[in-house]
Amino acid sequence: MRQQDLIRAALEGKATCVIKNANVVNVFTNEIIHADVALYEDVIIGVGEFSCENEIDAEGGYLAPGFIDAHVHIESSMVIPASFMKVILPHGTTTIIADPHEIANVAGVAGVRAMYKMTDDLPLRVLFMMPSCVPATPFEHSGAKLVAEDMEQFLRKSRILGLGEVMDYVSATSGTQEMLDKLRLFDGKPIDGHAPLISGRTLNAYRVAGPSTDHECSNFDEVKEKLRTGMRILIRVGSAAKRIEDILRRIAEEHLPTENILFCTDDKHIETIRQEGHINHNARLAVACGIPPIEAVKMASYNAARAYGLKNIGAIAPGYKADMVLFEDLKDFRVKRVFTRFGKPYEEAEYHMPILPPAVYDSVHVAPVTEGSLCLPVREKMPVIEMVPEQLITKLTWRSVKSEHGAFVPSDGLCKLAVVERHHATGSIGVGIVEGLNIKNGAIASTVAHDSHNLVVAGDNDRDMLMAIESLRECGGGYCVVSRGIVLARLPLPIAGLMTDAPVEDVLARQQALLDAAKSLGADERTDPLIALSFLALPVIPDVRLTDEGLFDVTKMEFVQQ
Amino acid sequence: MRQQDLIRAALEGKATCVIKNANVVNVFTNEIIHADVALYEDVIIGVGEFSCENEIDAEGGYLAPGFIDAHVHIESSMVIPASFMKVILPHGTTTIIADPHEIANVAGVAGVRAMYKMTDDLPLRVLFMMPSCVPATPFEHSGAKLVAEDMEQFLRKSRILGLGEVMDYVSATSGTQEMLDKLRLFDGKPIDGHAPLISGRTLNAYRVAGPSTDHECSNFDEVKEKLRTGMRILIRVGSAAKRIEDILRRIAEEHLPTENILFCTDDKHIETIRQEGHINHNARLAVACGIPPIEAVKMASYNAARAYGLKNIGAIAPGYKADMVLFEDLKDFRVKRVFTRFGKPYEEAEYHMPILPPAVYDSVHVAPVTEGSLCLPVREKMPVIEMVPEQLITKLTWRSVKSEHGAFVPSDGLCKLAVVERHHATGSIGVGIVEGLNIKNGAIASTVAHDSHNLVVAGDNDRDMLMAIESLRECGGGYCVVSRGIVLARLPLPIAGLMTDAPVEDVLARQQALLDAAKSLGADERTDPLIALSFLALPVIPDVRLTDEGLFDVTKMEFVQQ
Repeated sequence: MRQQDLIRAALEGKATCVIKNANVVNVFTNEIIHADVALYEDVIIGVGEFSCENEIDAEGGYLAPGFIDAHVHIESSMVIPASFMKVILPHGTTTIIADPHEIANVAGVAGVRAMYKMTDDLPLRVLFMMPSCVPATPFEHSGAKLVAEDMEQFLRKSRILGLGEVMDYVSATSGTQEMLDKLRLFDGKPIDGHAPLISGRTLNAYRVAGPSTDHECSNFDEVKEKLRTGMRILIRVGSAAKRIEDILRRIAEEHLPTENILFCTDDKHIETIRQEGHINHNARLAVACGIPPIEAVKMASYNAARAYGLKNIGAIAPGYKADMVLFEDLKDFRVKRVFTRFGKPYEEAEYHMPILPPAVYDSVHVAPVTEGSLCLPVREKMPVIEMVPEQLITKLTWRSVKSEHGAFVPSDGLCKLAVVERHHATGSIGVGIVEGLNIKNGAIASTVAHDSHNLVVAGDNDRDMLMAIESLRECGGGYCVVSRGIVLARLPLPIAGLMTDAPVEDVLARQQALLDAAKSLGADERTDPLIALSFLALPVIPDVRLTDEGLFDVTKMEFVQQ
Repeated sequence: MRQQDLIRAALEGKATCVIKNANVVNVFTNEIIHADVALYEDVIIGVGEFSCENEIDAEGGYLAPGFIDAHVHIESSMVIPASFMKVILPHGTTTIIADPHEIANVAGVAGVRAMYKMTDDLPLRVLFMMPSCVPATPFEHSGAKLVAEDMEQFLRKSRILGLGEVMDYVSATSGTQEMLDKLRLFDGKPIDGHAPLISGRTLNAYRVAGPSTDHECSNFDEVKEKLRTGMRILIRVGSAAKRIEDILRRIAEEHLPTENILFCTDDKHIETIRQEGHINHNARLAVACGIPPIEAVKMASYNAARAYGLKNIGAIAPGYKADMVLFEDLKDFRVKRVFTRFGKPYEEAEYHMPILPPAVYDSVHVAPVTEGSLCLPVREKMPVIEMVPEQLITKLTWRSVKSEHGAFVPSDGLCKLAVVERHHATGSIGVGIVEGLNIKNGAIASTVAHDSHNLVVAGDNDRDMLMAIESLRECGGGYCVVSRGIVLARLPLPIAGLMTDAPVEDVLARQQALLDAAKSLGADERTDPLIALSFLALPVIPDVRLTDEGLFDVTKMEFVQQ
């Protein structure tokens, strides 16, 4: 009879909690209304004059709908959802739309299920998009493959909203059967796009195929063209953000309607979130760039709710869930208090740490690797991955390199790089040469290696590289730095080789230790060598990458002939 | 492989039809863009520069998404959907969201099915809301009763969008089990409201219960309060419109966001539609009242599509259906050309007249009625329904009336009124007295009698009243005027006693004949006596009505004790 209770409570104005004296943002009329907000458990039953025994004084603060991160990969935080929540909830983000793309590439359906399970009872509202591109490319071995048939079982799950970012825009715009099957399965539901710089007829074809959002825009003209096609534009302020202020300023200057513009972070380092905030930081930037504050609030809440078909969040009105955030003002968006989906302030909300399915703990399966496996025979000129400082892009150059017995020997700033298939112990290994890491007398390694998350290792000697591989195998994945046979630093990420349930403070401390250790081996400080390592195996960023299948020329979309 | 063909056509810009030289309204960016629009069959594949063998010159006209009537009762037009379409499509309405409330009150589930079937193959896109209040009140006998269980079978039908107007706001705000069952069944789908003047906590309770739209607002403050609760407001310009210009002017003056404001007609006479237009008339009024033209277009199309979860109409962009209308300008909204859901101009679209299920033709079942059945015993003072000229409301007065042998005899401008249960031949008859119709030497009768659509008849002598009843029984329902034993005029409405498949011209001619005949019997010209008759049995309009169960005091919500 709960619905009946709710209706009666609304009719009689009998609240279980009243937030007094708030400046309530009304996303429907673009007003700020000084009022009380009445809750009955986790549902808003009125905005007006109310009182009850359990009152919370908002002290004239600005009460907005809880903020929504419309696109985020939790795994990239390297902590489990419960820990990630503790970092973002205090910044007013009460809902995230997560794409478990990383864990799906490692553990497939079981990985998606694990994420779902880990987020069942959190005060943070965690919704999901079904990863659409697993594996991300056909040029590497991932831990799993997801086809439409695998996804069908998730259609009925209430927290699976639609299909995750369709990065493989070539398959979408050429209409391959496998991609069409997935798109058809989610027809009528939200389908996230991911299509940097596509335009004109390719964009038309992409839209006809189905994707209806984009979070990759890097300039205003791209925003405008995509908006014109009916795409929802997610303004991303993450660790990879680019020219966002310029885009926001132009939106404000040209009075572009913002109803289809929303916010996301995609990937954002935990430490950066703690320092500058989460979606409230997007809102802060928007207002600083000239977007009216109420519009910024809507971009951070209502617009996202509408874009993803979430009917009972994103507004403060009767019948809506009481996910709300109280700000000091609508300029700096400093948070006074957060009300979670349990209808309680965050600090009062109880939640239980989830029990994780054991399967996701056992994800690192490496076939025996020997010095022979890492041997790279040399020719007159060898292809070298040249890193570009402070960026993730690379250049392909051809060099004469040092060798002994016909095998490459690292020297003169060149390191050996290897990508070891680590999901099914197939023994598939790609070996190459990288310039720019500058590791001396040691090796660095990681099982976080977008998007297939094989084991990537770089160093100047085979012994330390083998030891780094063994060290990660032994701890179930993570990051490590090894020198002269000693593990200098290690961050175990036992969950799928991507995440840990260790406290956030520990993770940050170990990350710092890893960085310090890498620097002690001579690593270039301008680019975080461990992040750089994680992206050296991603065969979608130009110009050249190493996968477990070999050196890949991203500009030509083919393996480099050695 | 159709989806693959579409994607390829978009990628290659290969259209089956190109509309050249149009000023295209972009509802996403609020721009008017001079461009060509490329179609591949019924889908838009691009807006830009295109050409193909089959080109249509827009001659610089304004191309907008096809207009949407967000709430309409087709039955009130008295013609079948195919005929109704011919009246509205030329005015640019390409989609209607119909509530088959009238036929459902007569024929229940079979009535809804008949409407669905009759609209399957029309160039007009006809979508439905499931009638929520059948019967409309417990104070009368209707032809059917629809409970949640009956509605379940319609949930999977693609053209049934949600639950129709919840007129019974008392059941909703008090949370009766029967109403909650219906609301729960459509949880997460659009649920239309109908709640004139409700406000404050009652409105809160109504919103918590579920309804998310309202088309009954009669003043700006009501619009604003309902908008604040997250309701979509349908601006109705129908035959019952009230103070709409004032509302539109205030919306414009106060710069209220219009994203949740849409248009509807509800009930609008065919003749009025032909004269002033349909949803394009709403748009014309909006612009005349100061609403920016592009916003008016959005209220007429995009906003409605979004409110009802229609993802592929309401915009001119790749992937959207080619429902479009070409206007001379965005001020008078005069139509140059209409493109239907078949991807063809209206005049080229072929469609087949539907075969109607025979059941709906057999809806008038009246138990034998005699002069005895119509006998009204008199007391010292008798309750009289006093009609208010030019309005649908009535007053209850008590009078001394003429009688013979203890039975009421019409005289001095008083007529006898009877409501005869006509669905299941139960013999239930309510008899009363009405002032204001002024029928002399005759009777008028109708099987269109909101909302239960029993047979209502009024006259000054029993013989003509009995003949009028017999005349309608014999033709399967409709309207008639009888005098001195002769049927002066009749409009047969054989489909459920509500609609006919006769041509619109015939219907209009017969309506005029009915009106002339009624006037020849002395009927007051200030109110259309036949329309007035149709509303005399509707026990939700104050102050007093007659149902087949007796005289009902709407202000007290109880039967009048005689």
